[in-house]
Amino acid sequence: MGAQGTRDRIVEAADWLFYRRGFDQSSFADIAGTVGISRGNFYYHFKTKDEILTAVIDRRMTNTQATLHGWDQGGQGPKDRITCFIQILISNQVEIMRYGCPVGGLVSELTKLDHTAQDQANAIFTLFRNWLRAQFALMGRAGEADRLAMHLLARGQGVATLANAFHDGEFIQAEVNQMCDWVQALEPTLRS
Amino acid sequence: MGAQGTRDRIVEAADWLFYRRGFDQSSFADIAGTVGISRGNFYYHFKTKDEILTAVIDRRMTNTQATLHGWDQGGQGPKDRITCFIQILISNQVEIMRYGCPVGGLVSELTKLDHTAQDQANAIFTLFRNWLRAQFALMGRAGEADRLAMHLLARGQGVATLANAFHDGEFIQAEVNQMCDWVQALEPTLRS
Repeated sequence: MGAQGTRDRIVEAADWLFYRRGFDQSSFADIAGTVGISRGNFYYHFKTKDEILTAVIDRRMTNTQATLHGWDQGGQGPKDRITCFIQILISNQVEIMRYGCPVGGLVSELTKLDHTAQDQANAIFTLFRNWLRAQFALMGRAGEADRLAMHLLARGQGVATLANAFHDGEFIQAEVNQMCDWVQALEPTLRS
Repeated sequence: MGAQGTRDRIVEAADWLFYRRGFDQSSFADIAGTVGISRGNFYYHFKTKDEILTAVIDRRMTNTQATLHGWDQGGQGPKDRITCFIQILISNQVEIMRYGCPVGGLVSELTKLDHTAQDQANAIFTLFRNWLRAQFALMGRAGEADRLAMHLLARGQGVATLANAFHDGEFIQAEVNQMCDWVQALEPTLRS
């Protein structure tokens, strides 16, 4: 396998570990062990854990942009695209119940660590926030689009935190239904 | 100062540090340094960090029970008591913007650490959940009281997470107003 392939595998493994155990709890040895490479090969790619963190955040940014772009290209209207966002809570529910939200978890951890990468991690939230704001504006809610985006982001974060604490899948489903109803109710009624 | 006073000061300092830095990032030396006592005196009270964690969770349980009891004794109806709960986000907003919610933060961290004290920390959430459920039942919503309690807890957690990420006090205020309106709207309309 080429150097780029090895690098990608390191970043993927680190992403996986940072989500499940936290950044601080995942050591170089843990990551190298997960990938199954030698310490020397590892250091060829990354000298510090902060370099890996930057690469993990870049990977998450790229994946998030690809997801949002896919929804934008899906031929649906803004209301249905927002529903796709809400449905992440269902499609990822097994992991959310075990580990919470990967974005919220990393931001909270880096804030507590007072880590310099806080703003980088936060940029993933901002990506969702700006995308949601654009969708709400397309729904004719331009004046309050940012408020609605922040509100929905917060609802999702809260559901992830409590689903993680109580390991409760029915709770996720009930909240997702409520959020979908909420978006539906925002749509202007068509005049007949 | 007596042994009990020293013990209380250790637990208070540990509570403060666990909230601001996280449990894992707070060492014996950090806690002893904050209290200003010797290592020997420290070990007289606590042999392991897990013992301190248990004491911190006990302290938070006791403080939460006292807060809820105070609201119960305050002579207000259930709707106004729920409003007191929502208003915690305002009264603690400076700390929430910097460190998030202490309950959600500890539960998330212990879950990632797969720590045996997860359930103990979770009991603080359960305390709020049961208390909120009782208030919603008193408002005539017995059939859906637990759902409403979980919903409101999640809203609060989500607000804390995003306020922490974006350091945004206006967002907290706007969400608190919305939550208060939501509780208000749950109250049965008085028949005239």
